[in-house]
Amino acid sequence: MENAQNRYHIGIDDILAARERIRGYAAYTPLEFSPALSAGGKKVFLKLENQQPVRSFKIRGVMNRLRLLTPAQRSRGIVTISSGNHAIAVAYGAALLGITRCEVIIPDGTPESKRSVISAYGAAIVPMGRNYDEAHAMGEGYVKGSGLYFIDGGDEDTAVCAGQGTIALEILEQNPDIDSILIPFGGGGLAAGIAVAAQALKPGTAHSACAYKPDNAVTPARTLKPGTTATPGGTKPGITVTPLYSEKCPAVERSFREGVFYGYYPSEGSICEAMVGGIGHIAFAQRHLFAAPLGVDEEFVKKGIMHAFFTEKIVAEATGAVPIAACLQHGASLPGTNIALVITGGNLDARLFMDLVGNRAYVQKPLA
Amino acid sequence: MENAQNRYHIGIDDILAARERIRGYAAYTPLEFSPALSAGGKKVFLKLENQQPVRSFKIRGVMNRLRLLTPAQRSRGIVTISSGNHAIAVAYGAALLGITRCEVIIPDGTPESKRSVISAYGAAIVPMGRNYDEAHAMGEGYVKGSGLYFIDGGDEDTAVCAGQGTIALEILEQNPDIDSILIPFGGGGLAAGIAVAAQALKPGTAHSACAYKPDNAVTPARTLKPGTTATPGGTKPGITVTPLYSEKCPAVERSFREGVFYGYYPSEGSICEAMVGGIGHIAFAQRHLFAAPLGVDEEFVKKGIMHAFFTEKIVAEATGAVPIAACLQHGASLPGTNIALVITGGNLDARLFMDLVGNRAYVQKPLA
Repeated sequence: MENAQNRYHIGIDDILAARERIRGYAAYTPLEFSPALSAGGKKVFLKLENQQPVRSFKIRGVMNRLRLLTPAQRSRGIVTISSGNHAIAVAYGAALLGITRCEVIIPDGTPESKRSVISAYGAAIVPMGRNYDEAHAMGEGYVKGSGLYFIDGGDEDTAVCAGQGTIALEILEQNPDIDSILIPFGGGGLAAGIAVAAQALKPGTAHSACAYKPDNAVTPARTLKPGTTATPGGTKPGITVTPLYSEKCPAVERSFREGVFYGYYPSEGSICEAMVGGIGHIAFAQRHLFAAPLGVDEEFVKKGIMHAFFTEKIVAEATGAVPIAACLQHGASLPGTNIALVITGGNLDARLFMDLVGNRAYVQKPLA
Repeated sequence: MENAQNRYHIGIDDILAARERIRGYAAYTPLEFSPALSAGGKKVFLKLENQQPVRSFKIRGVMNRLRLLTPAQRSRGIVTISSGNHAIAVAYGAALLGITRCEVIIPDGTPESKRSVISAYGAAIVPMGRNYDEAHAMGEGYVKGSGLYFIDGGDEDTAVCAGQGTIALEILEQNPDIDSILIPFGGGGLAAGIAVAAQALKPGTAHSACAYKPDNAVTPARTLKPGTTATPGGTKPGITVTPLYSEKCPAVERSFREGVFYGYYPSEGSICEAMVGGIGHIAFAQRHLFAAPLGVDEEFVKKGIMHAFFTEKIVAEATGAVPIAACLQHGASLPGTNIALVITGGNLDARLFMDLVGNRAYVQKPLA
């Protein structure tokens, strides 16, 4: 048990080191004030990871992992299993570092638009299975036999997770007054990295909403800057890190509330494909760093996509629009007064968008 | 005549100074490689000014002008006449600098979406006239009587123009191999600033396409870095700066080819409202720095908007999509092999976009 804890633990030092490793490879994205989303004394800011060159935060974790590979590992090559943003980030990262052998296992149904981006960066596409689960099941054996280094999506690899955590370093550098961060939670690698960094830099928030007591000895105190003190579990003003989930899949809500690890979780059909299914070990191990997870109705996610486009003039994919949805749905009851929304990605599905613009319920307001 | 030349002249030193003045106020935007637009040995890069917080390059010039104001000018306040990106930039810049009195004269028909952005930054809206020309005619008297400092759009104010020129400093820092820049040309303040900086940093290109000989004594040579030499009008590899115009309004093409200043120019109805009408004095005075202007068909501009959204996953307004249109229309015949497209803005008109997505001719390909 102790080993498992250590295996899934990350600390602020890992994230600070990751920042140096990914500098110049991943973009330092803007934290933008949103006049339209700010109301009732709350100021809302957008952390625009959809402006990464690959249009998602995934490049941060991937670059940290790739730069930790040995020369021998790089020259043998890498492989991953993904049909989404992670695959694009791996292909792009490999191109940046001159890793010539990069294979991406994707299921048959993957749209041509995603295939062409992956190919454009020089990665080889290996079609396998009819859907992601089949691709993963069939891909595992292939990966083992290939001799290639497997690049995890981040929920089980602390190096990838630490890379994602650099987002919080930037947010608190860009606006030290941020006291609340809302993050789409899928497997939780992104959320865990951000929570570790945020709680280390700005400790002191109560996590009473989460019925959990840390079962390892690591507290944010060890990573404090000189002159500050930690009050874990206390009520001193600090920062609240809130995982967001689609109501179609409350895996994180149940996992954190019950203290039970749901590595697999059934889900209804969702437009937030990156957010459904079970949670990862790393996030579960750091669950004491989070406030109570907050659910969003996918109707608000659709409105969030349209708000992003018509009002903020940005492209947010469904998962990337989830924090906007949380603002639209929960408004004044959101934790904090200076709130950062992590807009995780911009690879918006064209068919979904076309369905939305064809529906007056979603577009009538922006055109008024 | 000599005085007029000097009044409208800008040099690289003005642009380097502007960069220091606007640092921290305007974003250093990405220069992104576009795999989708690169073809036939040409690499295409996007300079994403649509990612500025105000969604256009205008903030660069406005900030340079505002930071040059005296304390007395700032405390008296500022005024501008614009219904577009310039107005948003002025309101935003005033808010950043704590200039409490900021008035924006706009015509009656200005959409609510633009009014609300201007108001959100604390500027006062002064409705005047039924369209931009009327607003301008009626506004001039108001401005003179107001005692407020008038913030020009940039085509006649060298400080604003110098601010826009910082785009070229960034482009050549981000990729020194860039040998061609394509820029939407309206009044030309943006294009002139970029041309001055680009030709100073990377001199040596022939401008034979432009039937014009410089009529002032300033050549790029005076602003060179040590160890480089200028060959104005020569054929040494340097950089080509190409003004783009909508075929609905070839003012710049005629002005540069004939050497005649067309300060007013008739235009057909255009979706690129920022690009129609006559040209400005500053760009005319620097016309020897440009390659032959290139026209784009507005059908390609529409396709460019859709390419931006569905393929690049960015929001480009019509004028901002003009360089993409030039790629789609002219492809292999574009000057240069490493081409930077200046995506000037992202405040896409919602009604135009809805018209485009309702038309199969524009959306069928991205969904294939």
